[in-house]
Order: sequence, then structure tokens, then C-alpha cells
Amino acid sequence: MLTLYDYLDSGNGYKVRLLLALLGRDYRLVALDIDKGETRTAEFLAKNPNGRVPALELEDGTVLPESNAILYYLAQGSPYWPSDALDQAQVLRWMFFEQYSHEPNVATPRYWLRHGLATEARKPQLEEKQAQGRAALQVVEDHLASREFMVAGRYTIADIALYAYTHVADQGGIPLKPYPAIAAWLERVRAQPGHIAMDAVADTPV
Amino acid sequence: MLTLYDYLDSGNGYKVRLLLALLGRDYRLVALDIDKGETRTAEFLAKNPNGRVPALELEDGTVLPESNAILYYLAQGSPYWPSDALDQAQVLRWMFFEQYSHEPNVATPRYWLRHGLATEARKPQLEEKQAQGRAALQVVEDHLASREFMVAGRYTIADIALYAYTHVADQGGIPLKPYPAIAAWLERVRAQPGHIAMDAVADTPV
Repeated sequence: MLTLYDYLDSGNGYKVRLLLALLGRDYRLVALDIDKGETRTAEFLAKNPNGRVPALELEDGTVLPESNAILYYLAQGSPYWPSDALDQAQVLRWMFFEQYSHEPNVATPRYWLRHGLATEARKPQLEEKQAQGRAALQVVEDHLASREFMVAGRYTIADIALYAYTHVADQGGIPLKPYPAIAAWLERVRAQPGHIAMDAVADTPV
Repeated sequence: MLTLYDYLDSGNGYKVRLLLALLGRDYRLVALDIDKGETRTAEFLAKNPNGRVPALELEDGTVLPESNAILYYLAQGSPYWPSDALDQAQVLRWMFFEQYSHEPNVATPRYWLRHGLATEARKPQLEEKQAQGRAALQVVEDHLASREFMVAGRYTIADIALYAYTHVADQGGIPLKPYPAIAAWLERVRAQPGHIAMDAVADTPV
């Protein structure tokens, strides 16, 4: 059985849990607490030397880190990964955009605000990140203004990757009100058969 | 013919130029100057709304941004993209690692130092990034200590993605001396048939 090492408030982890639910795949969940240093133990660093969750352990013991690489692996042969090479590249284009331009500016403010790290000294950096987060959301908004989903007219792992932290952007001080196309897309994502919420916990946590 | 919108000092652009050279593909190069705002013009934003280079324009006018998504697209059917699904996922794992943990901490200090942006006010942020850059390089060092290349025992786009900014890390104040496995791997990458240097300019710049 697959084992997912995860932190339950992580949007990156939620991406994987969401796809596993959509695919109806069983897995064992090992919940680690970032605040308690549980992703920096020697045991976990042996699994992912970069000390980050999520990381997916396969039946043979191979460990695959990086949420979007995990999505790629799990989505092979499913409707969530398109068959056309250019569509595939556009899916990855939005997943790299998510990790470079979106996540560090939308997820990090949320993490700082929820973990008491938004100190006075960090305020300029927080505000710079929030501004860049709004810029990233505007790129997504403009793209979705004329589209139902990010790529190929249907729900793919590009949508899953971007949904994870976009739908909780307000928790990082970035309200979604200025982005009506994003709001409509969030509803389309939530309406997908098999959708689960970010705080839905698996049946068999360890 | 393919058109590559690029900034010639960009490691992200170099990734694409390197793969195009390895593949022996002809292309038209449009060199844009970031410092002059040439990636923020209405004309370029119509091609890549995120206002970043590189971006690859295909024969039919489709534009594909994000260096690592471009590598994926160009490498299909070539020896630089493995055929096994798990190897593919591990290639992407290192490419996402590159964009999230490596590039912002290895490339950004280099950019700041080369463009007069390493101000006194930015010094703490610069030093934090350099520390995180060293941590990212240590992860690569440990991985390469027992391997010739990043994934599947051979040269793939994971190596190309990581080579681009690693080999000029010292220009961002991160000397490579503490990383002997990386140094040996840099030599193996340079020894690949068709390799070009970062400052090799295409024959037909516009």
C-alpha cells in the first residue's frame, strides 16, 4: 500500500490527498508535525533529504517527494493527465508557475500568519509576498476569464495544484473578492465527483 | 521554426538553449533585456502573462512559458527524458526541487549581485537566501555522492535544469568548493556531446 508522509494543514499535501481521493486509491497516512521538527528527524531525512512533506512511499520502499511530481506519477493513465504532449507541457507549465510564482507568495503568508511568524520585522517581506501573490492570482484570473479549467478544457492536475492554496488565500491575507473567474472555477473544482475538503482526514491516520 | 524569447544572462533560458543545442534544433532567438523592462511590454505580456523569460513560441503561435515545462516538451522522444514512469516522476521531482528550493536561493543572489540590487537593506535577506542555497546544494551533493547523474544513471533534463544555476553559484556568493561530488558532475555534464556554454550566443539573434 502507498504511504503518504504529510502535514495535515499543508496545501501541498492536500493536493496529493485530493488526487488519491479522486482516484479512489487507498493509502496509509503518516501525519508529521512541522512545528515539532518531525520532518527534520534522521528517520524522515533518510526518506526525503530535503526535509519536506508531502513525500509518497511506494510499495517497494521508493520515496517520491515534491507534491507536483507526486501528482504527475499518480495521474498517469487517468483523466487528470492529458494525452497530448503540448497539453501535458501546459499542465506542467502551470504546475511550475504554481511552485515558483504562486505558492511562495500565497502559501507562505498563510503559514506565517497561522504559526505566529508574521512578526513586525517580517512585515515588509510579508507585504511584498502578498503583493506578488495578488499578481500571481491575477495571472490565473485572466487565464480563467475565458476558460472552464486551466488546460485542455477539463479538470487536470494543473487545477488540483493551483486549487490547493488558492482556495485558502484569504487565510494569508489575500482576499479572493477581486477574482470572480477564480471564484467560479473554485466552485467547478468543488463540484467534481469525489472531491474532498482540505480538512478531510483519511480514515486510517497513524 | 521555433522562437525562443530569452534573456541571455538567464540560467533558466540557458537550460532551453542547452537542450536545443544537444538536440540540434534550429530556432530563432529574441533576446529581451529584463533591466529595460522588455519582458513587461504589452506585446510580451500577450505572449506570457506572467512576464517572464524564457518562453518558447511554437510554429502555430502557441507560447509555452516556464523553463522546465519547455524542457519537458522538447525532450519528448529524446534520450533526455526517460521512458519509465517512476524515473519520469523522479526527473520532475528534481525539476520542482530546482524551482522551489534551489533557483530562488542560488539564482536570485546572483541576480542581485550582478544588477546592483544587493543593497544594505537587503543584506539579511541575501544571507538567508545564500544559506538556503547552500542547503539545496548539500542535498544535491549528497545525492550525487553515489551517482553519476541525478536520475536513472544517465544525463536527463533533471541534470540540465540543475546545471544551469549550479555551475555559476559562485557568482551569487556561494562557492562550490565544499561540494566535490557536484564538481565532478559539472565536468560530466560539460563532457556531453553537443554541450554549449552559458554565454554561447546563437548564430541568428534578432
